[in-house]
Amino acid sequence: MTVGGCACPFASRRALLAATAGLAGAIAGHRARADTAPAPAADRVPFRGAHQAGILTPQQSHVSFAAFDVTAPHRAALIALLRSWTEAAERLTAGATAAPLGADVSQPGADSGEALGLGAARLTLTFGFGPGLFEQNGADRFGLAALRPSALVELPRFNGDQLVPERSDGDLAVQACADDPQVAFHAIRQLARLAAAAARLRWVQAGFLPRARAGETPRNLMGFKDGTNNPSAADAAAVVWAGAEAPSWMQGGSYLVARRIRIALEHWDRTGIDFQEQTMGRRKYSGAPLGAHHEFDPLPLDATDADGNPVIAENAHVRLGAPASHGGTRLLRRGYAYDDGVSVTAERWPPWRQGLAYDAGLFFLAYQRDPRDGFIRIFETMAKLDALNQFTTHTGSAVFACPRGIQTGEFIGAALFASG
Amino acid sequence: MTVGGCACPFASRRALLAATAGLAGAIAGHRARADTAPAPAADRVPFRGAHQAGILTPQQSHVSFAAFDVTAPHRAALIALLRSWTEAAERLTAGATAAPLGADVSQPGADSGEALGLGAARLTLTFGFGPGLFEQNGADRFGLAALRPSALVELPRFNGDQLVPERSDGDLAVQACADDPQVAFHAIRQLARLAAAAARLRWVQAGFLPRARAGETPRNLMGFKDGTNNPSAADAAAVVWAGAEAPSWMQGGSYLVARRIRIALEHWDRTGIDFQEQTMGRRKYSGAPLGAHHEFDPLPLDATDADGNPVIAENAHVRLGAPASHGGTRLLRRGYAYDDGVSVTAERWPPWRQGLAYDAGLFFLAYQRDPRDGFIRIFETMAKLDALNQFTTHTGSAVFACPRGIQTGEFIGAALFASG
Repeated sequence: MTVGGCACPFASRRALLAATAGLAGAIAGHRARADTAPAPAADRVPFRGAHQAGILTPQQSHVSFAAFDVTAPHRAALIALLRSWTEAAERLTAGATAAPLGADVSQPGADSGEALGLGAARLTLTFGFGPGLFEQNGADRFGLAALRPSALVELPRFNGDQLVPERSDGDLAVQACADDPQVAFHAIRQLARLAAAAARLRWVQAGFLPRARAGETPRNLMGFKDGTNNPSAADAAAVVWAGAEAPSWMQGGSYLVARRIRIALEHWDRTGIDFQEQTMGRRKYSGAPLGAHHEFDPLPLDATDADGNPVIAENAHVRLGAPASHGGTRLLRRGYAYDDGVSVTAERWPPWRQGLAYDAGLFFLAYQRDPRDGFIRIFETMAKLDALNQFTTHTGSAVFACPRGIQTGEFIGAALFASG
Repeated sequence: MTVGGCACPFASRRALLAATAGLAGAIAGHRARADTAPAPAADRVPFRGAHQAGILTPQQSHVSFAAFDVTAPHRAALIALLRSWTEAAERLTAGATAAPLGADVSQPGADSGEALGLGAARLTLTFGFGPGLFEQNGADRFGLAALRPSALVELPRFNGDQLVPERSDGDLAVQACADDPQVAFHAIRQLARLAAAAARLRWVQAGFLPRARAGETPRNLMGFKDGTNNPSAADAAAVVWAGAEAPSWMQGGSYLVARRIRIALEHWDRTGIDFQEQTMGRRKYSGAPLGAHHEFDPLPLDATDADGNPVIAENAHVRLGAPASHGGTRLLRRGYAYDDGVSVTAERWPPWRQGLAYDAGLFFLAYQRDPRDGFIRIFETMAKLDALNQFTTHTGSAVFACPRGIQTGEFIGAALFASG
């Protein structure tokens, strides 16, 4: 048996020889074991339920996020894709291969194999539908236009946006979160492969969080604690789940806004700690709001200093993001740091340095009941006024409707197609 | 106190106010605590010793690797950089900030802060000197040309190389490995900032491994176990450390070859399992060599099938990489998977698909006693013959001399400058 320089992927002679020698059976045995060993329960997040996992699920350490352009010519092909994704997602989140590996060694494996033995690693797969699924250049490709939620609007152009098309938008999205980067990567890779005939990758983004310390808020790449004021688990349900105002297929679902935010880390690092704290509205090391003492103290938005100036500046990041600044509007942030190396860039603020700089920052992910009363409402003001903007550049943007969870026998988004 | 739209990083009025109000002292207190809490011993890898850490250290889960171009005008500035890196590295690998944070809030922090509270996470920082430090365009910038090891050669152009200058070479290198991606990222960021007057980032590369399972060889993104035949800890010393043949400053050091290897994952996934196994020379699921039964069985390189053909093909990856194929030559691989998203590419083999494809694969790192009798010797053959080449493209390349470890009071590479 020799490869002999042949690049042909289907080497039937070798397959035959292997089968004759009984090797195929031995290999199949290996596969069956790798394929069926169940992941420990603590390592698994149930895929099915009233809501999709990966939204209220406590954040895993890594994300691999993918947006797809749908190429399916008709509704049936789109449904077939969602059915195949559903089957694969149920297996992957249980720590199994995307499909049973099979015994025919002449054929490509049903799974690329790099997650064998890694368990489920708390993998969640969260699916979203972009505006283009409902309408693309005025065309109702899949007969879904009438079912588009009014809340699934295209995001407006925000002040300062420098969006790159290759990092923005998409008809379908999959957020893979896991406590192992290879498990998250593997899941997206399998789904992309299953999509080959019906959708193609448009962009992907990896991200990470620091290792969790019980009860501690993780710090972002600006060195500040990030997420202190996120809704608690108890409060989050009212913040994220669409209700009776939504089409029935979206009731119990949530809207996801994704923004790739490059941070001028080199510039930030040259600013004084006091300036950083004024910009943010919190102390850097303790996380306490300015004018307060402890991280979880309420923001003293009305407090003034001896000169009558607000202790938390009018353009401080936490003030502009606070629910009190937007009639109580909240969203659930679920972002990750990203690190895409260095590239040539020009800083947007004095001293306008140019050269190689980190392409790193925040892959912002936020879930909400309605983006119009969530991210859009909050960020329209922040994009204009936030003192932090001089260090941040939004280079990618997308919005998706993530349908409610599914029960046994349903496929992802089944209710959308049932109602259409 | 208000930021008031001012982009000036040095806001002395606010600093004065903060100091007057006693806030500076409170902040300094926070800093002192964050700064001095020692990392648990199990979480720390000693920075000083006969050899640099990060070579024989059991692999951590994440790498952040940086190569720098030196801009220092003279030898003293280069030495000052290495001294400052040494001080910072000793602190960082102990889980501390790069420097004491200080109490003057009007000034930039001595550390960007995102690793506060994360501990040492087994951080290792391994430093290397590229050929350009000894000679650049024929110039002996730092009076080191006479001390260049004969083993520190520029790598030849290998068959199939598609090297990108922005991902290759460098005068200095730092390999940061840690069990937390944010700890590794943070360390490189601090060193890059300390280098500002003497060196600038040329390229950086992040990578990851799957979560370690005791006694299991991790799988690479091709789905195969990777590292089975790596030298054991007992054997590695003879493989990696330069001896009496090297200049005295390099005795106990090691040579690092870094290669960024893009893998055509989509193409690989369309090939049969049997073909993949023939290409690799091992079984995909068990890791056993073809013609053997268990992962750690010796490679049966002389075994033939009933037709007289070798069971492990002449161009199989494991055969061409085996020490027996190169007069016993070995190296220590210490690579990581990388995932840099998707980009437009053209496959190099039938069916020559073009379009968006993963820019993902292997960030290959290998240590050896002499690259001429290590990577170069092995890869000159593999680059021409390895059946795996149809799926791999080397897009980045660099070589560095990593000096021996240092004792208390020495700085990185001190022996190089002492001998010069």
